[in-house]
Amino acid sequence: MKAGIVGATGYGGIELFRLLTSHSQIDTLTLYSSSQAGEYFEDIYNQLHVEGKHQLKDLNPEAMKKDLDVIFLATPAGVSSNLTPKLVGGHAKVIDLSGDLRLKDPNTYEKWYKKEPAPESLLDQTTYGLPEWNKEAIEKASVIANPGCYPTAALLGLGPVVEGQLANPASIVVDAKSGVSGAGKNPNPITHFAHTQENFQIYKVNKHQHIPEVEQQLKQWNPEAKPITFSTHLVPMTRGIMATIYLSLNEDFSTQDLLDRYTSYYESHPFVRVREEGEFPCTKDVYGSNYCDIGLTVDERTRRVTIVSVIDNLMKGAASQAVQNMNLLFGYEEREGLPLLPTYP
Amino acid sequence: MKAGIVGATGYGGIELFRLLTSHSQIDTLTLYSSSQAGEYFEDIYNQLHVEGKHQLKDLNPEAMKKDLDVIFLATPAGVSSNLTPKLVGGHAKVIDLSGDLRLKDPNTYEKWYKKEPAPESLLDQTTYGLPEWNKEAIEKASVIANPGCYPTAALLGLGPVVEGQLANPASIVVDAKSGVSGAGKNPNPITHFAHTQENFQIYKVNKHQHIPEVEQQLKQWNPEAKPITFSTHLVPMTRGIMATIYLSLNEDFSTQDLLDRYTSYYESHPFVRVREEGEFPCTKDVYGSNYCDIGLTVDERTRRVTIVSVIDNLMKGAASQAVQNMNLLFGYEEREGLPLLPTYP
Amino acid sequence: MKAGIVGATGYGGIELFRLLTSHSQIDTLTLYSSSQAGEYFEDIYNQLHVEGKHQLKDLNPEAMKKDLDVIFLATPAGVSSNLTPKLVGGHAKVIDLSGDLRLKDPNTYEKWYKKEPAPESLLDQTTYGLPEWNKEAIEKASVIANPGCYPTAALLGLGPVVEGQLANPASIVVDAKSGVSGAGKNPNPITHFAHTQENFQIYKVNKHQHIPEVEQQLKQWNPEAKPITFSTHLVPMTRGIMATIYLSLNEDFSTQDLLDRYTSYYESHPFVRVREEGEFPCTKDVYGSNYCDIGLTVDERTRRVTIVSVIDNLMKGAASQAVQNMNLLFGYEEREGLPLLPTYP
Amino acid sequence: MKAGIVGATGYGGIELFRLLTSHSQIDTLTLYSSSQAGEYFEDIYNQLHVEGKHQLKDLNPEAMKKDLDVIFLATPAGVSSNLTPKLVGGHAKVIDLSGDLRLKDPNTYEKWYKKEPAPESLLDQTTYGLPEWNKEAIEKASVIANPGCYPTAALLGLGPVVEGQLANPASIVVDAKSGVSGAGKNPNPITHFAHTQENFQIYKVNKHQHIPEVEQQLKQWNPEAKPITFSTHLVPMTRGIMATIYLSLNEDFSTQDLLDRYTSYYESHPFVRVREEGEFPCTKDVYGSNYCDIGLTVDERTRRVTIVSVIDNLMKGAASQAVQNMNLLFGYEEREGLPLLPTYP
Repeated sequence: MKAGIVGATGYGGIELFRLLTSHSQIDTLTLYSSSQAGEYFEDIYNQLHVEGKHQLKDLNPEAMKKDLDVIFLATPAGVSSNLTPKLVGGHAKVIDLSGDLRLKDPNTYEKWYKKEPAPESLLDQTTYGLPEWNKEAIEKASVIANPGCYPTAALLGLGPVVEGQLANPASIVVDAKSGVSGAGKNPNPITHFAHTQENFQIYKVNKHQHIPEVEQQLKQWNPEAKPITFSTHLVPMTRGIMATIYLSLNEDFSTQDLLDRYTSYYESHPFVRVREEGEFPCTKDVYGSNYCDIGLTVDERTRRVTIVSVIDNLMKGAASQAVQNMNLLFGYEEREGLPLLPTYP
Repeated sequence: MKAGIVGATGYGGIELFRLLTSHSQIDTLTLYSSSQAGEYFEDIYNQLHVEGKHQLKDLNPEAMKKDLDVIFLATPAGVSSNLTPKLVGGHAKVIDLSGDLRLKDPNTYEKWYKKEPAPESLLDQTTYGLPEWNKEAIEKASVIANPGCYPTAALLGLGPVVEGQLANPASIVVDAKSGVSGAGKNPNPITHFAHTQENFQIYKVNKHQHIPEVEQQLKQWNPEAKPITFSTHLVPMTRGIMATIYLSLNEDFSTQDLLDRYTSYYESHPFVRVREEGEFPCTKDVYGSNYCDIGLTVDERTRRVTIVSVIDNLMKGAASQAVQNMNLLFGYEEREGLPLLPTYP
Repeated sequence: MKAGIVGATGYGGIELFRLLTSHSQIDTLTLYSSSQAGEYFEDIYNQLHVEGKHQLKDLNPEAMKKDLDVIFLATPAGVSSNLTPKLVGGHAKVIDLSGDLRLKDPNTYEKWYKKEPAPESLLDQTTYGLPEWNKEAIEKASVIANPGCYPTAALLGLGPVVEGQLANPASIVVDAKSGVSGAGKNPNPITHFAHTQENFQIYKVNKHQHIPEVEQQLKQWNPEAKPITFSTHLVPMTRGIMATIYLSLNEDFSTQDLLDRYTSYYESHPFVRVREEGEFPCTKDVYGSNYCDIGLTVDERTRRVTIVSVIDNLMKGAASQAVQNMNLLFGYEEREGLPLLPTYP
Repeated sequence: MKAGIVGATGYGGIELFRLLTSHSQIDTLTLYSSSQAGEYFEDIYNQLHVEGKHQLKDLNPEAMKKDLDVIFLATPAGVSSNLTPKLVGGHAKVIDLSGDLRLKDPNTYEKWYKKEPAPESLLDQTTYGLPEWNKEAIEKASVIANPGCYPTAALLGLGPVVEGQLANPASIVVDAKSGVSGAGKNPNPITHFAHTQENFQIYKVNKHQHIPEVEQQLKQWNPEAKPITFSTHLVPMTRGIMATIYLSLNEDFSTQDLLDRYTSYYESHPFVRVREEGEFPCTKDVYGSNYCDIGLTVDERTRRVTIVSVIDNLMKGAASQAVQNMNLLFGYEEREGLPLLPTYP
């Protein structure tokens, strides 16, 4: 199989490169970059040099859509909405890691991203690639919008309880925390080590562009879904997201009742692991892997459930989820090419 | 003035030592330790050696309560409930940094701390030392229960909105995050660097012993107060607490309405700084200082307010708040001996 | 093939487990522990649970040496010297990750390790497993002493220049720095996060037990080798070693002269990568991989060469080098089962 | 007294601001900035707001040299060489924290800094501000070149042994390590958190511009001094420098012999603390303070001494050493306004 990565030099692109070079089904891997075309990937990242070098190629959508089987877009917001229309309709399938194709409503995109939306026809033919909830559609898709990092963590934690309509839809509070790699590789005052080390910061309060992405899916699960409260924080670490989620329950469910529902729902999904009562995952539990680990507890005093959902933002939150989507899209085993054990310590 | 520190070799004790040795009103400072009596403090902490050494003395309550003006207890839970009764009734005033004297109801203490409570008579004569809300009582107190680190951050953030009865008392969610020094200096698997670096962990979900301390004060402010949802997380950094607080507002307050109330309430309190609309503090903003910095925003979509409150857990969350209490207790200027500028970077 | 790990719950053991479970040639993997026999590995490390669980078995040397093909010892100093004699002479080959079998001279072991040495007959039949310098012997070995983490970094950096006798043998200074995982998983004051974060520490100056291991190999390369100066430091990070090595050159070699020798020597060794002139590796360049990356420069002003050698202490410094040794021992491709790309960022 | 800071918004400038605002002898403090004139310092650094705000003023050398008593230059290389000539000859004394005035030989400056040197006449009247070795000259100076961070650590460690001519002057190797704040506040790929966290890097091998500064002072102490080997590394922490120094001793000095010399030399210098035999300082021992802590040991096997010297690069390596110089210059107590206890943990 022939795969291409557009935007290979960003953090998501590097992880894609790492995963795809060891994927048993990929025969050739081509890297594209508009800004660094002509350079060699391994000259930029010495440490990723194994044998031979990959020259970054300029974008040629016509050739790409004909010659490649799958194209990954690991590009900043605003690129895919222009580029993807030129890549569809040929042989290649497209997996977009950016936020450009995730929101079905162009106005919502414009409002939260402050950018020109993708054409509506493209949005219509795009499948939201959250494999644990959308597997059948993904298997038949031609364009996949790979979910955002925060939405992946939040939605996998919220799914069983919202889809089962077990909680008050107006009560959802998501307090999310991310490592610094989520901010991308461009240096800025917030990613400066001396500022961010020994520091815990909150940012984009109620304004994060991942909010409508979560809400769109919640509405799919429960048409009564309401706007959510969603905070994002920066943790002085490189990788990892934890979403701590709070909801008011409709009925007197016990912790075990809810855990049973989660365990049963995710049983057939190898990349979601539900902890036993009294145990909660930490971000290091999924470091370098495609897992989403979930723990939860019901507080008898408040009738609220606290759900804890963790992922590696560059893996299940980006690159490895994209590979999982590729596996489904092409009929490979879902776990093919994905590391099954997180790194510890 | 003669001051004594019991438990000087813990993290809180070290900070007390640092602050009190440069406090203009302290003439002699005596350090006590039951387990390390006889050793020299500066032999344990080479780096704190300036001139002369402080020998750790064994506890002698009779002499202490007669000879000292103020005694700080920086001891683990369960010590002060036994020791303080022997220290009161003499000349010395007592400032207890542990949780033993904070809860008025012995049963509540027993339930959350799983330890024998202090005598009720002692609890009755103890003043809760949150200076921004309890200044007059502190000035007349003989025994002060210095607030916990999480409650300090949470209560200073909640005060104006709960005391003003602006929000639904059943809607409070506090998502709190702390640096590792909050876990104390005894090494354990959770404080192991290799486990905790590049990791974000949740712990004691709905079970933290600081929950009833927050609720007790909320009830003082509003008798209708209900149990709160309160989560505690471990951030891979040494110092700092952020409490991200969520409440449903009763009326259509704007962000600016609420900020005006906060600014006006805390105007006369030099150690609480309220940020302008659109700005939020990070934990490094208060590193090494006695400040609590607060920012907030109202989400029009959900009618919830998000309040962000940060402190240095070893300073405003422990040692420097204790010195602030001492200043009030003895009629010194409230800021005496407290660093006015945080360390940056 | 049937493999066993003794001491699977330590940091080295965990990495072995991770590597061996995805190694194409391992059919069954058995974990042993004397202190935790009966427990399940995946109950101790929730995050390493994929499918099924591994029960920790008690040691039964008689059965092990008969039933297993290869036994990895990831045990503290002092265990292997007693255990290995019971494991040899049967079917199984032994790869010892501890320091017990590395030093040929029992007196030297006793002096630096302050422990009872292994029997001399066992030491005689043990092969030092530094594959880049000892490949042929390893292929025929029955017992392999897997090199220490510091010696691996130091020796791969020193090899070409010392074996080529290009430098003054009395001039060697090795200034080595390691991440905290090198100290093992037992919590102690030095590995406490609050002590070690934002801290850089030196320890065991001139006293590290890896010094004689380096010197023994230097003597193999050059009988004129002299005692070396060797310092070890603790870096506030989890993984990675950098050895910065200083030697006085015998002749007027240029940087390029030396780089040519290194490149040419290591050409056939896939896990040593030599940087071009003017470039130096950092520890993250080899994170999670089996590489040793090397850079060097000659200072015209002092006629000293500075050699920089980096490894991941848990991988090339322990577990993945052990797997590399296993591959050679059993005739597999040297890179089998070893990740070819480091993790970044 | 009236003080001014040029370049107050850099890391060195912020620390100067913090120290000078609480210095008992400073009555007014004026901040200057050519690029941000007109803005308020406290609007840039919210967290440094106490009472009132400091407007950044444009540079007016004529007025400054008349109105101010002391001017601190916390500016990048290349600024002071132009600016200082306009500031001297009036009332104000100048303390320059940059490297522009440290090297007596303009050619050496040009070679290592790749910038136009300061006028030779200015260099002639400038005093090198290393108080422990140059106190008398500092007390009479009008222009002080505040030492670099690495030279401060290296020279205080080397002083007694080089000035006493106890070691081979051609044998000096300095392996230095610094926290990231040494790289300044401008974001770049090297200071990006995701790159630098969990990473240990070497940079500017044999090329650091602090090398000639160290060598110039060594020559003062011993005219036979030779070029040194000097490596600089980046530690994933914000503050702190450790210089690990290696020299070959001329005679059979014991560790205690050398420690006696160090202790005796530094006895009258309150900011250098010499550790007892067997003890070595770590960088956290001096965090946030003006101390330089030193430990050393002689290796009987190699006749080399290993000297460990640590400072806080922003304090003794920059701002607090500048204040120490100001104290000497104006006849205040040497410790005035300087924190006597480091922050721990």
